[in-house]
Amino acid sequence: MPATYQRIVLAARPRGPVAEQNFRLESVAVPALADGEVLVRNHYLSLDPYMRGRMSAAKSYAASQALDHTMIGNTVGQVVASRHADFAVGDYAGGLLGWAEMGVADGSLLRKLDISRIPLSVYLGAAGMPGMAAWYGLNQIIAPKTGETIVVSAASGAVGSVVGQLAKLQGCRVVGIAGGPEKCAHVREVLGFDACVDYKAGQLEADLAAATPDGVDGIFENVGGATLDAALARSNAFGRIALCGLIGGFNGQEMPIKNSRILLINRLSLRGFIVTEHMDLWPQGLEQLAALVAEGKLKYHETVAAGLAAAPQAFMGLLQGQNLGKQLVKLI
Amino acid sequence: MPATYQRIVLAARPRGPVAEQNFRLESVAVPALADGEVLVRNHYLSLDPYMRGRMSAAKSYAASQALDHTMIGNTVGQVVASRHADFAVGDYAGGLLGWAEMGVADGSLLRKLDISRIPLSVYLGAAGMPGMAAWYGLNQIIAPKTGETIVVSAASGAVGSVVGQLAKLQGCRVVGIAGGPEKCAHVREVLGFDACVDYKAGQLEADLAAATPDGVDGIFENVGGATLDAALARSNAFGRIALCGLIGGFNGQEMPIKNSRILLINRLSLRGFIVTEHMDLWPQGLEQLAALVAEGKLKYHETVAAGLAAAPQAFMGLLQGQNLGKQLVKLI
Repeated sequence: MPATYQRIVLAARPRGPVAEQNFRLESVAVPALADGEVLVRNHYLSLDPYMRGRMSAAKSYAASQALDHTMIGNTVGQVVASRHADFAVGDYAGGLLGWAEMGVADGSLLRKLDISRIPLSVYLGAAGMPGMAAWYGLNQIIAPKTGETIVVSAASGAVGSVVGQLAKLQGCRVVGIAGGPEKCAHVREVLGFDACVDYKAGQLEADLAAATPDGVDGIFENVGGATLDAALARSNAFGRIALCGLIGGFNGQEMPIKNSRILLINRLSLRGFIVTEHMDLWPQGLEQLAALVAEGKLKYHETVAAGLAAAPQAFMGLLQGQNLGKQLVKLI
Repeated sequence: MPATYQRIVLAARPRGPVAEQNFRLESVAVPALADGEVLVRNHYLSLDPYMRGRMSAAKSYAASQALDHTMIGNTVGQVVASRHADFAVGDYAGGLLGWAEMGVADGSLLRKLDISRIPLSVYLGAAGMPGMAAWYGLNQIIAPKTGETIVVSAASGAVGSVVGQLAKLQGCRVVGIAGGPEKCAHVREVLGFDACVDYKAGQLEADLAAATPDGVDGIFENVGGATLDAALARSNAFGRIALCGLIGGFNGQEMPIKNSRILLINRLSLRGFIVTEHMDLWPQGLEQLAALVAEGKLKYHETVAAGLAAAPQAFMGLLQGQNLGKQLVKLI
């Protein structure tokens, strides 16, 4: 048992784009466990766009991340000490232990993970929070019918990749939007979307129109701005929009919806959501997602940075769309 | 029985603001009735913002109005000849007979009106389509709870005035947005809203913030643009937005929603709707509205132009917000 571990804290709030100096790597003592607590050695740290919002002081749906505290983050790892009856040393556990090699949590806040069916890291992606965000927005907001057309932005990302595959399994035509020919090829050829539009090619509206000959019935939005406007322009009457993220505006840019008139003209429904507010559905959703991964029906891709010190650069890359699939940091 | 009657046709589509030359007044022969048809002498013509959309060739939710045909419009009047079993000469009837002194319709498309309880003209306003738009958007989309705060734009208009009074009857705090001190005084003092913000005073955001100390739970939007953005800025978590109209953009201006981020941050739901697509609810809604008017619990105000030839100017005034309450043209 080591006496110290490394962690990364929020050193300063970003002004504009996130930079290295917003973070600080430091060593801290491994704390003693109180009754009910568990010490977990993290194997993987998840990097997710929502963390950018927490780094700002501005009002958001969650409290902003405190300065000089461990950066928030989902983790999976292995129990190294336990004073909780449900966890034994060696058990695999998922939690919210942050950007750190280790962490202590009350056992009631940890989830025991079965790695006999799917790899440990997948509990941070397709069978974790991003998968649930896809599952919730698609099934509870878009509620697609067979034969409908669904558009997904950030289609090669951890959420978008699951959205499109779930919609394909439900008999939809699925069109992704992603940045660059490599991502688009992955979305089409590996993930099995019907089409993928490369927004970096500079003719998003025309390309999306060509890819959606029957219009668009559902929009799963991760980006916002011009991406959302292009999808709205193709919407059919009574279309549904699940607003999951606005990563296009993470550096504080305005992200106006210029096509507001089409919300009325086509009688569209739009709903913003935060998947962690719907925990009642997680057991059902996560079981479905894990089963689909185990059966090979739900594919995933991971971009893995090595070591805690690599987390800031990997996070900046995520915000700039440099990752393919789920962005992880491998800690052990 | 006259041999001819006057009507107004769409002479040319507007380029920018609507102008007199978009219309043409002409005389036409009173047609002979086929079996099942009814000839109605219109007493009142309703002028409504949706007509502006029909005047354009651009795609909208309804077919655009054909050139050289009678301008579309809701009417109430009295039967002067009938070949339909349900209608006798002298009956009062509502229909869609357009900008015309008379019209022929299949009896199945007319609604018989009872003027013993409420005046005939009210069937074009609080107990007609505008009232139903208010009823539907408030009850089916916003679904307010007692004590919640509801913001209504175009609050002194035919729709907004009903929205606010219905919400007050349900125990909500109701804040209107209207243009000018006279309209705001009417909204507060006659209609009984808790507050009314004059957007023409030039400090909409600050005034709306002062009028909504507990934030905003429901937004009934008739205007769009900066008006909607100001209301969004005050939204509470899980707020609902009924998008009924975007009269602020009727001359083709872009009406961007700049506050798109708040849709996500506050997990808002927004839905555009067209009340004529929900006819199943009209009998229930219209009965409630007529009863409330008869009991004096739902107040209304009418701005009445005299004679068919006055309709174009009255319509231009409506689009510029010159009316107070329901804009009518009295034909007889």
